Amino acid sequence: MSTIFDRLPHIRYAGPEATDPFALRYYDAKRVVLGRSMEDWLRPAVAYWHSFVGNGLDPFGAPTHQRPWFSGDPVQAAHQKAEAAFVFLEKLGLPFFCFHDRDVAPEGGTLRESNALLDRVLETVQAQMQRTGIRLLWGTANLFSHPRYMAGAATNPDPEVFAYAAGQVKHVLEATHRLGGANYVLWGGREGYDTLLNTDLRQEDAQLGRFLNLVVEHKHRIGFPGTILIEPKPMEPTKHQYDRDVATVYGFLSRHGLLGEVKLNIEANHATLAGHSFEHEIATAAALGILGSLDMNRGDPQNGWDTDQFPNNAQDLSLAMLEVVRAGGLGQGGVNFDAKIRRQSIDPEDLLHAHVGGIDTTARALLIAERILRDGGLERAREERYAGWKSGFGQQVMQGQVSLEALAEHAATHPPPQPRSGRQEALENIAARFA
Amino acid sequence: MSTIFDRLPHIRYAGPEATDPFALRYYDAKRVVLGRSMEDWLRPAVAYWHSFVGNGLDPFGAPTHQRPWFSGDPVQAAHQKAEAAFVFLEKLGLPFFCFHDRDVAPEGGTLRESNALLDRVLETVQAQMQRTGIRLLWGTANLFSHPRYMAGAATNPDPEVFAYAAGQVKHVLEATHRLGGANYVLWGGREGYDTLLNTDLRQEDAQLGRFLNLVVEHKHRIGFPGTILIEPKPMEPTKHQYDRDVATVYGFLSRHGLLGEVKLNIEANHATLAGHSFEHEIATAAALGILGSLDMNRGDPQNGWDTDQFPNNAQDLSLAMLEVVRAGGLGQGGVNFDAKIRRQSIDPEDLLHAHVGGIDTTARALLIAERILRDGGLERAREERYAGWKSGFGQQVMQGQVSLEALAEHAATHPPPQPRSGRQEALENIAARFA
Amino acid sequence: MSTIFDRLPHIRYAGPEATDPFALRYYDAKRVVLGRSMEDWLRPAVAYWHSFVGNGLDPFGAPTHQRPWFSGDPVQAAHQKAEAAFVFLEKLGLPFFCFHDRDVAPEGGTLRESNALLDRVLETVQAQMQRTGIRLLWGTANLFSHPRYMAGAATNPDPEVFAYAAGQVKHVLEATHRLGGANYVLWGGREGYDTLLNTDLRQEDAQLGRFLNLVVEHKHRIGFPGTILIEPKPMEPTKHQYDRDVATVYGFLSRHGLLGEVKLNIEANHATLAGHSFEHEIATAAALGILGSLDMNRGDPQNGWDTDQFPNNAQDLSLAMLEVVRAGGLGQGGVNFDAKIRRQSIDPEDLLHAHVGGIDTTARALLIAERILRDGGLERAREERYAGWKSGFGQQVMQGQVSLEALAEHAATHPPPQPRSGRQEALENIAARFA
Amino acid sequence: MSTIFDRLPHIRYAGPEATDPFALRYYDAKRVVLGRSMEDWLRPAVAYWHSFVGNGLDPFGAPTHQRPWFSGDPVQAAHQKAEAAFVFLEKLGLPFFCFHDRDVAPEGGTLRESNALLDRVLETVQAQMQRTGIRLLWGTANLFSHPRYMAGAATNPDPEVFAYAAGQVKHVLEATHRLGGANYVLWGGREGYDTLLNTDLRQEDAQLGRFLNLVVEHKHRIGFPGTILIEPKPMEPTKHQYDRDVATVYGFLSRHGLLGEVKLNIEANHATLAGHSFEHEIATAAALGILGSLDMNRGDPQNGWDTDQFPNNAQDLSLAMLEVVRAGGLGQGGVNFDAKIRRQSIDPEDLLHAHVGGIDTTARALLIAERILRDGGLERAREERYAGWKSGFGQQVMQGQVSLEALAEHAATHPPPQPRSGRQEALENIAARFA
Repeated sequence: MSTIFDRLPHIRYAGPEATDPFALRYYDAKRVVLGRSMEDWLRPAVAYWHSFVGNGLDPFGAPTHQRPWFSGDPVQAAHQKAEAAFVFLEKLGLPFFCFHDRDVAPEGGTLRESNALLDRVLETVQAQMQRTGIRLLWGTANLFSHPRYMAGAATNPDPEVFAYAAGQVKHVLEATHRLGGANYVLWGGREGYDTLLNTDLRQEDAQLGRFLNLVVEHKHRIGFPGTILIEPKPMEPTKHQYDRDVATVYGFLSRHGLLGEVKLNIEANHATLAGHSFEHEIATAAALGILGSLDMNRGDPQNGWDTDQFPNNAQDLSLAMLEVVRAGGLGQGGVNFDAKIRRQSIDPEDLLHAHVGGIDTTARALLIAERILRDGGLERAREERYAGWKSGFGQQVMQGQVSLEALAEHAATHPPPQPRSGRQEALENIAARFA
Repeated sequence: MSTIFDRLPHIRYAGPEATDPFALRYYDAKRVVLGRSMEDWLRPAVAYWHSFVGNGLDPFGAPTHQRPWFSGDPVQAAHQKAEAAFVFLEKLGLPFFCFHDRDVAPEGGTLRESNALLDRVLETVQAQMQRTGIRLLWGTANLFSHPRYMAGAATNPDPEVFAYAAGQVKHVLEATHRLGGANYVLWGGREGYDTLLNTDLRQEDAQLGRFLNLVVEHKHRIGFPGTILIEPKPMEPTKHQYDRDVATVYGFLSRHGLLGEVKLNIEANHATLAGHSFEHEIATAAALGILGSLDMNRGDPQNGWDTDQFPNNAQDLSLAMLEVVRAGGLGQGGVNFDAKIRRQSIDPEDLLHAHVGGIDTTARALLIAERILRDGGLERAREERYAGWKSGFGQQVMQGQVSLEALAEHAATHPPPQPRSGRQEALENIAARFA
Repeated sequence: MSTIFDRLPHIRYAGPEATDPFALRYYDAKRVVLGRSMEDWLRPAVAYWHSFVGNGLDPFGAPTHQRPWFSGDPVQAAHQKAEAAFVFLEKLGLPFFCFHDRDVAPEGGTLRESNALLDRVLETVQAQMQRTGIRLLWGTANLFSHPRYMAGAATNPDPEVFAYAAGQVKHVLEATHRLGGANYVLWGGREGYDTLLNTDLRQEDAQLGRFLNLVVEHKHRIGFPGTILIEPKPMEPTKHQYDRDVATVYGFLSRHGLLGEVKLNIEANHATLAGHSFEHEIATAAALGILGSLDMNRGDPQNGWDTDQFPNNAQDLSLAMLEVVRAGGLGQGGVNFDAKIRRQSIDPEDLLHAHVGGIDTTARALLIAERILRDGGLERAREERYAGWKSGFGQQVMQGQVSLEALAEHAATHPPPQPRSGRQEALENIAARFA
Repeated sequence: MSTIFDRLPHIRYAGPEATDPFALRYYDAKRVVLGRSMEDWLRPAVAYWHSFVGNGLDPFGAPTHQRPWFSGDPVQAAHQKAEAAFVFLEKLGLPFFCFHDRDVAPEGGTLRESNALLDRVLETVQAQMQRTGIRLLWGTANLFSHPRYMAGAATNPDPEVFAYAAGQVKHVLEATHRLGGANYVLWGGREGYDTLLNTDLRQEDAQLGRFLNLVVEHKHRIGFPGTILIEPKPMEPTKHQYDRDVATVYGFLSRHGLLGEVKLNIEANHATLAGHSFEHEIATAAALGILGSLDMNRGDPQNGWDTDQFPNNAQDLSLAMLEVVRAGGLGQGGVNFDAKIRRQSIDPEDLLHAHVGGIDTTARALLIAERILRDGGLERAREERYAGWKSGFGQQVMQGQVSLEALAEHAATHPPPQPRSGRQEALENIAARFA
């Protein structure tokens, strides 16, 4: 079968000096970085969602992207889409892909039909996986596009919707297991509210906690070895999403007994919409022990919605990669390129340019992080800054051996503390030197 | 002694039709609202910080407000300030006030000296409290203005600063106890970071947890019956503050074993800087069982820093008051008017206008909330929306009696759920009707 | 023919105490406010766009609103939609409506076909206008939804698109004239850029200036007596829209010789997305002599995209209405309710609740403005504040009779100026008193 | 005299591989870039304001930076500051500096005294200029710090304040002329409003227009050959500043007959606070013919106030430098480093690190822009995109030879336009390739 991606070139690493726009200049899968291959650090994946389902639609305009599988018999089109997708994935040569159930197969008239349709198309997907060796980073269920989910899935006021969502997640979790997926993601697309006026926060929190616990129980029942991941987002499409940011989801997991069971899939654009830098969210998740996986799509600094663009500034991203490396990597997670090409980018090759830019920016950021860490200046400065806590009085305080009273007495009988420079400008210069 | 506030009138309730600019038109302390007096619902307080310390300084200009106690011998000026403050408080006739240690008394050369100075001036304060019957809603220690705290207090890289902060908090906590304060507040003024590059998040989180635990232990040791409160803020003066918002602080309390010991003091302007509505933060705290007290200062919707203005839109605020009433009130907390008068508001009477507007807006908002709740339309609509969860299948799900598998089976064998209108516009009209 | 709106009640004014959710509590069309009827001040209109075309689609989900005219033969559906729309308009009883060409009739295969289709459906519209007496506030051409406009209409890099847009505008301008429209609006839906990298700002500015001049010339050629209006918006769907805000459009009009020919249609949500209050944009346009008409849809203070919600806070809006009244009203303009009902608001009656709330909030805001102006306190305070400029030295300066040198000499030989209170809190209290 | 900067090293260019933290790695003053030396392209300057006046004060805390000239006799301290400043400037080796009058000398009791004090200290400055060869990029008057300006300078409701400001500007303009300054800047520090309630926009606009005209007249009278520059800022310290952004100031200049007389000094942080990228503001000013000079201080992407930090991401900045080079440079303008070191950066060497990072980031950005332009791919893509406007039908349209009617006829008789890819991802990859 011929696809719109056939005429695109195979992407190859050609070094920083390459001028071919389709050459990878930094992503060299087997290159060893701090004792591990680039591919092992990044475990890069391409998502079905924006890449093969996105059509350029926006709230003010019709689709602009034409794909053969956007018309015709939906099931046949789904198979055709799968085949084209894997042609694209092969051209790109990355080891992983990701999907929502509804990206892969159309919705049927009933839950059973939808599940059966998904299974049928996943046979094609599985065949393509075997043919190409491309693996599944994560699967997920789309619990937000259908009108039944307009008021949320797990947090819907109607228990029937909760049950429907459960039925959908169970099926996709099992399919993910069957396909050897490394993780299963839950994105709370509409778990939130449009107005507090019709919302019972305590009730919806209890529902969401119940739902997650059910998913975790089922994961263990079926022996799925992957990680369950929640993807935080602060708003959009709802006014307020419950999985706002890393710290908020931490509190939720703690409240519902899910720490140790669930980790996070952090998206750059969701981080900035929540008022955080991407590196902040990664560092916070690492500090809290819940760093799972990454979605690399960034936002536009001047716009207040999810623009989901490919990363294109390696220096910016190097601070995020630095946190990943400091955390020892992403474990079973990876870096997912679930970014949207722009509405005006209507040529099939635009999709390839986008991914080449995204993966190369990420690889370059990893190399900058490597240089920063090899130099060691930043790490040393940080260690020295906190050195007082690692021994003597500081250590005793941290070990709980000193009461407030004793601290007060200490302060009253010791010379007053002297401010020391935070050295931000010098440290920024160090970080910039390796970019 | 004569003060700049002597010529200001005493504020009195005069009803909605009053035209006197200094009349209270809504705040009628003894009026019963849903079974409790207004004063009991609100427990309004005036803060020393902006009202008697603020001088109109901003990053681009010198002080504009002139107060006699801004010059001369600092200790004498502190006594003079206390006397003037209580004249103002009497004119206003509210039951509570609040203070930071450094608002009340100057910093001395050593911790001991500072503590002694505070104690001396607090004698004047205590005398004024006895004279006027005005009580202390909360006390707090200023752990952010002095250069020693430039890199944080509890989260400072230097254990000596941690000890100094401990000494300061111990003293103010004990003073608050002595003065019969109803609460003790911790605002993490500089507990956060200016750059991740020099910051160890895990270490600083551990320090902050340790500090709070020490404060809680000491509270119990001295038998202070008040509530310990944390005041969330997302940023400013630091780039990122650890006590970002209600959900973040919940996670922190949970992580450090402080749930049940510490509640929150929620400020309107901090809520909006964090990307939340004030009512969202209140409702979230109520749902999580950590609602403590309120700071009423609002932000400017077009500006991105803490403008700390008095509330002036009762309809806006009625949604916040509605959440307070739904939560059963603020317990030992209250509503604090810690708002800044504008830099151009240089006349003593401007300070009075400001408080009259603030308290009256709040009282009016409470009356709107009362009418909404008496009408009952909003509450009924919300209850009906979630009715499916209160019995039968929904209840079984919430009680943990139904597995994911059983839910999937249920969904597959029942008719698909039907969307029901969220009725946002109709509900907004109900809420607006009572404004 | 029966429509989905048939069973909705006719809306009537019933006074502030009315409890019927469909009663108007403030909008009393013939009530005289400061010498003019409410209807004459507001000239309220309902827009086709969101009300009859909106389907609940968002970037994350499928349509949720079902309307009979969303399926079936497009032309027949367009007639059906027109009939239903006028049933709705009659129920609401407002004097005006507005439309985009593509709201009313479907796109044909060619420009000629599209124009012919529009003319056919407009016959139905015109018949309905005659039957009901409802008039056209403005017409406009949709130059943003079709893929041909993905890179702009007048600012498209392809002159053929410019020509196509010209053909469309010419036709709708003439249709607006034929229907007796009071204004013609241009919203630069995609006149802007997604990336500066492919954009020539000077060229696109020249194109937009040329286009507007062509429209103005044609308006005069055909004798259209209405006003040409530009609707500013700062971003979305593009990263940057050229008609960013009032001040920006003023500069554009000045640069292209269009002052005196073109005025502005100001939308509340576009104002806040641009970082302004609605009242700021109205006051600025009034000061610059380019205030034309209003779109009442507001944004959500926590979200960064165009939520296009109905106004529901009369006190907020009173400051905007105050500026309208100070400006002497909107002339041939009006207040357009082009707001979106929420995606979950799927019942036909939700659309009616929305409009009832919107118009009533606006009318209430007008009544607050009336009380503020009758009281006169605010106006007097403002006049007194600037009194120094109205006579003597101040007046000479404004008349250009005093050089910089003479001013310097004046300053050196007169007592230094004394700061006077800006009295913001007192003035806010006055404004709030009448809400 | 010894200064705190004596022990700092002299900064020298040492190439990209240098590891000395005080080495310049990219700024090589005499290196030729696209036919002009780096120094000529950039004309870099250091500002007195943040560098020698900033003390680490913020709204929540006391000064942290200690400088010998912060205490003692103010006039003597001013001379000492000037000497230290020039030691620092020499160490840095940049060709220009900038100042506000109040940065250099203290305020006296009267305008005459203040002017005399300034003149005295400027003698020291002038001597230092002669000694070092360092020139003045621009001078400016501080019309915002003193309480007299709390309600604006030119836009103050009190004509006496207007006169005082005129006296101050006249003096500093003449001093700038005397020192051979290349430009004179007006930053409308408090030309704006805190509340619309006490503001007459039309009056204040007229005052600001009058003031600027007076300044321009005086410039011509005294024969000052430099450029008058306005520095846009959207907000802070006021709620709304009149010189909001480039497009707004263009409209103002046009309205008051000042086009051709006044250009803009664009600051990165002010651009982003106004919702624009820095490159957008530069490109807009260039397109409108009013690009004058740059202030390089950037904001923090997560904070909503003027953080005034040194640029540290060369790739980000390369898009701004690209616009500068496309515009043919900055003429008499330059790039000013008026950035704040962080409150925790208390060591004298922090100030040097900051400037080294800032100038090097800027130079590196210029080199990236050079590579982009030498490659030519971006420029070619843009030219091709608009090629249709440069000849034939497109050219006729732009020349005004085609009416709306003729355009409509053209569109109706030609094949419909075909969308062409905007190629954003491919173009971003090109831009990134040279970073």
